[in-house]
Amino acid sequence: MIVVLRQGTEAQERERLIDWLKGRGLEVWVAQREGQTALCVSGDVAAVDPRWLSSLEAVDSVRCSAEPFRRAGRGVHAQDTVVEIGGVKVGGGHFVMIAGPCSVETEEQIVAVAGAVKAAGAQLLRGGAFKPRTSPYTFQGRGADGLELLKTARAATGLPIVTEITDAAQLPLFEEVDVIQVGARNMQNFALLRELGRTRKPILLKRGLAATLKELLMSAEHIMAGGNGQIILCERGIRTFGDYTRNTLDLAAVPMLRELTHLPVIVDPSHATGIARLVRPMALAAAACGADGLMIEVHPDPGNALSDGAQSLRPEDYAALADEVRRIREVVAK
Amino acid sequence: MIVVLRQGTEAQERERLIDWLKGRGLEVWVAQREGQTALCVSGDVAAVDPRWLSSLEAVDSVRCSAEPFRRAGRGVHAQDTVVEIGGVKVGGGHFVMIAGPCSVETEEQIVAVAGAVKAAGAQLLRGGAFKPRTSPYTFQGRGADGLELLKTARAATGLPIVTEITDAAQLPLFEEVDVIQVGARNMQNFALLRELGRTRKPILLKRGLAATLKELLMSAEHIMAGGNGQIILCERGIRTFGDYTRNTLDLAAVPMLRELTHLPVIVDPSHATGIARLVRPMALAAAACGADGLMIEVHPDPGNALSDGAQSLRPEDYAALADEVRRIREVVAK
Amino acid sequence: MIVVLRQGTEAQERERLIDWLKGRGLEVWVAQREGQTALCVSGDVAAVDPRWLSSLEAVDSVRCSAEPFRRAGRGVHAQDTVVEIGGVKVGGGHFVMIAGPCSVETEEQIVAVAGAVKAAGAQLLRGGAFKPRTSPYTFQGRGADGLELLKTARAATGLPIVTEITDAAQLPLFEEVDVIQVGARNMQNFALLRELGRTRKPILLKRGLAATLKELLMSAEHIMAGGNGQIILCERGIRTFGDYTRNTLDLAAVPMLRELTHLPVIVDPSHATGIARLVRPMALAAAACGADGLMIEVHPDPGNALSDGAQSLRPEDYAALADEVRRIREVVAK
Amino acid sequence: MIVVLRQGTEAQERERLIDWLKGRGLEVWVAQREGQTALCVSGDVAAVDPRWLSSLEAVDSVRCSAEPFRRAGRGVHAQDTVVEIGGVKVGGGHFVMIAGPCSVETEEQIVAVAGAVKAAGAQLLRGGAFKPRTSPYTFQGRGADGLELLKTARAATGLPIVTEITDAAQLPLFEEVDVIQVGARNMQNFALLRELGRTRKPILLKRGLAATLKELLMSAEHIMAGGNGQIILCERGIRTFGDYTRNTLDLAAVPMLRELTHLPVIVDPSHATGIARLVRPMALAAAACGADGLMIEVHPDPGNALSDGAQSLRPEDYAALADEVRRIREVVAK
Repeated sequence: MIVVLRQGTEAQERERLIDWLKGRGLEVWVAQREGQTALCVSGDVAAVDPRWLSSLEAVDSVRCSAEPFRRAGRGVHAQDTVVEIGGVKVGGGHFVMIAGPCSVETEEQIVAVAGAVKAAGAQLLRGGAFKPRTSPYTFQGRGADGLELLKTARAATGLPIVTEITDAAQLPLFEEVDVIQVGARNMQNFALLRELGRTRKPILLKRGLAATLKELLMSAEHIMAGGNGQIILCERGIRTFGDYTRNTLDLAAVPMLRELTHLPVIVDPSHATGIARLVRPMALAAAACGADGLMIEVHPDPGNALSDGAQSLRPEDYAALADEVRRIREVVAK
Repeated sequence: MIVVLRQGTEAQERERLIDWLKGRGLEVWVAQREGQTALCVSGDVAAVDPRWLSSLEAVDSVRCSAEPFRRAGRGVHAQDTVVEIGGVKVGGGHFVMIAGPCSVETEEQIVAVAGAVKAAGAQLLRGGAFKPRTSPYTFQGRGADGLELLKTARAATGLPIVTEITDAAQLPLFEEVDVIQVGARNMQNFALLRELGRTRKPILLKRGLAATLKELLMSAEHIMAGGNGQIILCERGIRTFGDYTRNTLDLAAVPMLRELTHLPVIVDPSHATGIARLVRPMALAAAACGADGLMIEVHPDPGNALSDGAQSLRPEDYAALADEVRRIREVVAK
Repeated sequence: MIVVLRQGTEAQERERLIDWLKGRGLEVWVAQREGQTALCVSGDVAAVDPRWLSSLEAVDSVRCSAEPFRRAGRGVHAQDTVVEIGGVKVGGGHFVMIAGPCSVETEEQIVAVAGAVKAAGAQLLRGGAFKPRTSPYTFQGRGADGLELLKTARAATGLPIVTEITDAAQLPLFEEVDVIQVGARNMQNFALLRELGRTRKPILLKRGLAATLKELLMSAEHIMAGGNGQIILCERGIRTFGDYTRNTLDLAAVPMLRELTHLPVIVDPSHATGIARLVRPMALAAAACGADGLMIEVHPDPGNALSDGAQSLRPEDYAALADEVRRIREVVAK
Repeated sequence: MIVVLRQGTEAQERERLIDWLKGRGLEVWVAQREGQTALCVSGDVAAVDPRWLSSLEAVDSVRCSAEPFRRAGRGVHAQDTVVEIGGVKVGGGHFVMIAGPCSVETEEQIVAVAGAVKAAGAQLLRGGAFKPRTSPYTFQGRGADGLELLKTARAATGLPIVTEITDAAQLPLFEEVDVIQVGARNMQNFALLRELGRTRKPILLKRGLAATLKELLMSAEHIMAGGNGQIILCERGIRTFGDYTRNTLDLAAVPMLRELTHLPVIVDPSHATGIARLVRPMALAAAACGADGLMIEVHPDPGNALSDGAQSLRPEDYAALADEVRRIREVVAK
């Protein structure tokens, strides 16, 4: 840890700080660089809160280790980024409700769900056309055809559409898609991220199953390095030893990310838990801890969904949930 | 998965169900046992929601695997357990606010914090006297002496006290303690659990760093097997690969545990994150997803705390948080 | 668990087996399907070893859950697959030594390393041209140019070359590459796997950081479903809470995979540990537990490598290691 | 990272080193403390190998963060500790074979196993009398009675005995036990560790399911702080997301621990995998990567063992394995 001292700090004040640090069992070196003085501290520095140090009169800044987020970091861009999709805003105090089925199945299904989620207050329609599936022997999505059905549902309801891309070669098909989603399994498909950086489409970037927050933000950097800063991050559960839920929803990632980055952060409680009856409590929790939005799976007939039925809400349950989320937001926003 | 059919289900209905299951690629065996008929289903059963099956007319019950919770399970005791501590109730709709310093340091400190957290609405005072510390070379707590200071603070404020035991041999010292806490590292110290089962004290049982929900509940069973059913479970973060927080707070454990067990479930956002400024958002999230209470570290001077200062709130911040939690509870309880 | 009984098993024997299972606290249903009789067992079945049950006279087979490996599974293809690369065989008792630098840097570097590792007994040359890097701001590999340098090194030494692909669009460039590597981050890039399934090139498929063995094998199925069965699996460490090594090398995956699949399984101790001085012991351990080969990073000047210098061996250390591996293999193969 | 320069290093050499570090994108401060000069380096220091820096002429030492192992660390005690049990030595080149059943069941069983494993070359007999079990409803071990049976087996064979303690209160019963085992679940039962520090018995300390290497060594420090340095560390698998084995055996922990500490390190492949047929390959791997011994479960009739039958070897398989381990050791020791 390097504690850079403010120019003009008196020797006495410096000695007091050194003594306080030594009193915590730490080793202190007095260092110079380009006219600045700093205390280089080694030992079990975890015992010292860098925020507390930063707040001292004598301290200019504290560097634990350089955060490598050149474009996504708060340091370079303090204001919240607001992503705009049609008339819908995400971030900077604008909360977004995204809903729809895991997979686009038929025109009837997607148009019906779109209407139902719109009525319940959703602002964006989600639906998978290209589905990354662990097994090659299960339903892989309707592909290009599914994208057409999403557009039909958009035409019928006015809801902008969010759908997943699984390969850069599909990009021409996504020209009329409103938000391009990068799934958890492709979070480090850097070839794809680079191509998305060349588009000017909003990107919904999901956290990988074993991705650290640093890695998630570095994947955003891959897109931003190409000039596309319209990125929404999405926490959707990580892989742990947990026994009852599909993944472990890491909600503390929400306030932590909001501190590290200016990009909006939403939560997907459906994939995180894999269990429909846990979607409501976790959606409320996400709203309570400061998420910028929710992406939730809704299906008119979960028992017969071609994928992920066990984690889909019925439209009427989604409507009730959307109402509760609104009330939680009112408490938190105050 | 074993789908037990209701007595008197007609063959036609049974065949329809078998066909539906086969249509999902599953293998179905028709089985008999003690006069009952069941469908034994093998294959990728994860694709089928047992709740949905259970809701069918023809189905009596669905057994995925026997839940081994003989005393802690909802199956044997559907009603919420309400733990009573002095006049304070926990569970069954009663939300508890527990607060105090990580460690009891001095009489002045503990009495001051007790007064401050009581004024902010806390109902129980926490404070560590016997501290399990990774290193033998750091402050290990004030021991028996610390228990006396806690009693002094109780006398001054009327707040019942919660404090951690680390060895069964300390039990005589805990006779006047109101709630005995078992820390994460001792969750599977079965010798200790057995002794606590013989007491009639309320027990606050924290989830181990790598404990599954099943293991947490089995540890509760160890206590309950001795006749002590006054147990409060506590989610406090699990160990993962996460990079910015000390642990990963598994909030989905809250609704999941509430479904599996009748015991109350509270959350400790201080240890879960290790970062004071994440305590507020995670406390609100815990309240939003249905926790029965919160245990939060509060210290009058976090920068000089003998342990865990980096995760402690100042009393004034705790007071503001307690107010927000109350308002979240009003939304959720409706 | 479904215990299918052998046709013609006598009632008495069946009852003895039922009693044994009940004695373990399990619930037993007698089931019929397509003329076969089975015992459907529920409860804590983990207490019973399915292998032991399978070995009984009365038992035809035991199904815990259907293994979904249609092409990669031992069940459908009992014999070891032998992958052939030029004259080099991998699997079925043929052990392969793959070595080279993390990244191809210059012609001088790659030709020198190729010569050195060949002299030490390596049969294949590895070297990255397209590098997937967490940060967009670090060296991303020499790309197409790097592939040419690899071919130069092959021409100079006769060693077939192994190098990583990061996007299906690069495939035309890989026409003269001997083995195409899929890195850990792309293990579930299904679009890429599908295209590789259409080639007839040997594929080196690395396990993802948080991939289960089932997922690794399902990714192999994605390739095999396209008709390409020339796949070498590679264990390279998984992500855990570990504190001293970059990843946790899961060596038990080696014998477990060899039981589940007929595909060869090799180990990459360089990426697994990230520490050059752990490469030797983990390479020896991999050879001892039955791996079909080793992929090891070698660099003539690790201190100045453009990537992963900290985990690279010097050529002379690799030569000494290769010799020890050979002697371990002699003990194990007996 | 603090790079302490050797006294008398010339300015030119210092500048060259500073330039090299800056060339890697790092920030360098020149610091003074107690007459010494150091370079304090911040930024992405992971890119620089501290070992490589340490090897430079100009560098006295490199401090990444202070290792807090005051008694267990190599820094304070470079020579391997050799633990002596009866005539059996462990560590410092002495390899130990420990074997026996998971639980002591009957006199007949334990005496028979003891004879069989002795014949196969085991030097110590293991057997559980106090069993920590997740469930309170399964066999908890024979307790004090089991210790007597172990002594009978010792008398019959001459093998010193290793058995687990689960509570400090049991210590008087362990007076004639040769090695006291601390199980994974009690690795951070500090009250117990403290009491063991007061004895002069050899302690076998198993790594906790989610314990880092630092935590394991700090638990050894708890024992050593009491004056007992006779400690054998044991890697026995950690908890991960793995799907086929009970735990994930972290074999890289063996060479890493041997670098960090002078205490001997053995491996328990039985608990690590939970599968008898993986014990052989993982035992060989452990021997190959430098472990100081193996603890393996052996049972004459695994199918009917009261605990952990699925992971026990038959005596004849153990004998064959012991022979292979010996041959692996011959290769590695050279």
